[in-house]
Amino acid sequence: MSDFRPEAADRNRLINPFRVMDVLERARQLEQSGVDIVHLEVGEPDFATAPQIVAAGVRALQQGHTAYTPAAGLPALRERIARFYADHHGVDVDPSRILVTPGASGALVLAANLLLNAGDTVLMPDPSYPCNRNYVHLVGGKAVLIPPASPGQPAPSLAQLDLAYNPSVKGLWLASPANPTGAVIPPTEVQALSDWAAKHSVHLLMDEIYQGLDYPDSPADSCALGNLPTALRCHPNNLLVNSFSKYFGMTGWRVGWLVVPQSLAAPANVLAQNLFIAAPTPAQHAALRAFDDDVIEVLEQRRAAFRQRRDFLCDALRSMGFSLPWQADGAFYCYAGIERFADDSEAFCRMLLEEHGVAVTPGTDFGAHNANTYVRFAFTNAMPRLELAAERLQRALS
Amino acid sequence: MSDFRPEAADRNRLINPFRVMDVLERARQLEQSGVDIVHLEVGEPDFATAPQIVAAGVRALQQGHTAYTPAAGLPALRERIARFYADHHGVDVDPSRILVTPGASGALVLAANLLLNAGDTVLMPDPSYPCNRNYVHLVGGKAVLIPPASPGQPAPSLAQLDLAYNPSVKGLWLASPANPTGAVIPPTEVQALSDWAAKHSVHLLMDEIYQGLDYPDSPADSCALGNLPTALRCHPNNLLVNSFSKYFGMTGWRVGWLVVPQSLAAPANVLAQNLFIAAPTPAQHAALRAFDDDVIEVLEQRRAAFRQRRDFLCDALRSMGFSLPWQADGAFYCYAGIERFADDSEAFCRMLLEEHGVAVTPGTDFGAHNANTYVRFAFTNAMPRLELAAERLQRALS
Repeated sequence: MSDFRPEAADRNRLINPFRVMDVLERARQLEQSGVDIVHLEVGEPDFATAPQIVAAGVRALQQGHTAYTPAAGLPALRERIARFYADHHGVDVDPSRILVTPGASGALVLAANLLLNAGDTVLMPDPSYPCNRNYVHLVGGKAVLIPPASPGQPAPSLAQLDLAYNPSVKGLWLASPANPTGAVIPPTEVQALSDWAAKHSVHLLMDEIYQGLDYPDSPADSCALGNLPTALRCHPNNLLVNSFSKYFGMTGWRVGWLVVPQSLAAPANVLAQNLFIAAPTPAQHAALRAFDDDVIEVLEQRRAAFRQRRDFLCDALRSMGFSLPWQADGAFYCYAGIERFADDSEAFCRMLLEEHGVAVTPGTDFGAHNANTYVRFAFTNAMPRLELAAERLQRALS
Repeated sequence: MSDFRPEAADRNRLINPFRVMDVLERARQLEQSGVDIVHLEVGEPDFATAPQIVAAGVRALQQGHTAYTPAAGLPALRERIARFYADHHGVDVDPSRILVTPGASGALVLAANLLLNAGDTVLMPDPSYPCNRNYVHLVGGKAVLIPPASPGQPAPSLAQLDLAYNPSVKGLWLASPANPTGAVIPPTEVQALSDWAAKHSVHLLMDEIYQGLDYPDSPADSCALGNLPTALRCHPNNLLVNSFSKYFGMTGWRVGWLVVPQSLAAPANVLAQNLFIAAPTPAQHAALRAFDDDVIEVLEQRRAAFRQRRDFLCDALRSMGFSLPWQADGAFYCYAGIERFADDSEAFCRMLLEEHGVAVTPGTDFGAHNANTYVRFAFTNAMPRLELAAERLQRALS
């Protein structure tokens, strides 16, 4: 037998494993040996899917909805999402521009293949969700990360973009609310960024997977389904990624969506046929239920719980000496500076995990700029566990 | 507002829309205007998912299995698939080599990203499943289609491979049983192809998504879960794609798997984290039930039904004057030559659909070589409908 061994293609060298996976694996080992671990590392809500959505999934299965849907998704779901943009955001989006995808991951893989040639550059903030730069790398593009002009800045400034611009720049990928910072880009700033992109013939792709999970200063101002306008209203050719995973609490079901300009609807549909055939059918039927009032009521209670956790955790971290330059106005993350305690975030995370039973994610997963002085706390755990984590952190740092 | 419009990247020009989608859409239009259409165009079994698997999916939902699984899939499912290879195929596959994916599509996207650099060539047969060449194109590779040395040949010959070989050739992608021909590559030939690949430092990727759906000459010889050996037994570094969609009847659930050489398990896992996070969770739990004896009993009855349909359809087509160079020994397709009737398969398919209410797929979806003289019949419809189709075809051709 020949000893030939296939090798991984070059692009795999650009795709780093997520350090959070090592944290998670080590945390599980420790748990198996009897150690109690508070999980603040995972970006997945601790709430199970709302019972009404689960019931809709069960019903879909019992009714035999187990065959493929069209590649771009169930027509009724695409129309329901379009109605969400019309009713909640006041933006007219033709359902033909909406592609239902296997999670936001599927949407981003599709977008990268749809938009980017080898050698094209995409600008994105540092820090940001690590997969986003990988989607660009996978299609032979180049992701250029722009560090914040000053810590706490939710998006690159126009001056920074002007400096970073060159003719290879074809895309500007942003997220609001953002992972890992929880920061929200103010609407006027989104408009300015969108105008900058259009002026430079650069597409703007906005990741809105945490839409719905924002926390206005006064809870009384909070509107069901969230208070942030969508970037779709800024320009009809902006692209948008969203998902049923976060606000709607359907992570494991794998349903997201991509909104493309009308002119790209046809090629996006062909790509979807090839890349996934279709998103999972029972999950799409279940997602049809997600916008109903009685479901939103459940989701809004959860959002209130996230707000309470956010308030508690940010206060606790601040009082212990963490810096919190980014306002955690959305999502379920605090991105905390550890410069008072350490200059090696991976070592700091190891210490917290091994010696104090608190699992958090090192900043090095999210970028390069000052990444060693940040860690991400995900408040995807109930208050009593957060209080325990705060006690343990206090002990660790005293 | 600027009139900038993002454009589709170059690779999208290489990805043709499937003509079968046009056939399907036109068929639906005709149906809406009251015309009865026999559907022989769609590669999806007409059987709903087996009730035991549906019940397992329902149970998973009711038990709250709605969170992400690990990227490579539920450990129990990876182990169950490994046990299938051990018990049924006598091949030892470590579960760490098995990645559960969102359908075979996910497996093939993962494999292309894992294995191919821009400029690399992959050899594959003409005709073959159209997505396969597209996965290669999407990562900047080149798919070279090898026409059969003579019609009916299930795979390229070694002489053809030697002729096609050049240093850019990095992969040989095959399928058995194959779409659109239903042809099975004999085990000795698979071994020879595997040896050729290893000798030339070319990876062999075998698509076995129709495994289990093969029809040995004597039904009495038929063994549950299929009679074909897996290509995994030929070389430990062969790659394999399979799925719960076809034999197991779980199309819309979106669960498949990829087997990689041990040396590529780690980078494949990192790619899976990025490309999809994980396959859908309820579907993975349901798939755990797919190998159980009472389920296999249902699936074997369906396989017997497919055999009966295959026998009927092949006989009917042959008696009408279609040529059937490929033996439909597996899957649920007949790839029929129309050279006695026409030399434009798309026009022929349009005629059958518009004038006779029979929907079939033109050969031009599957390759270039003589594609205009073939059409694909999918026997994914019950006997009475097949009989009706035969009557209509008879009328169309007389």
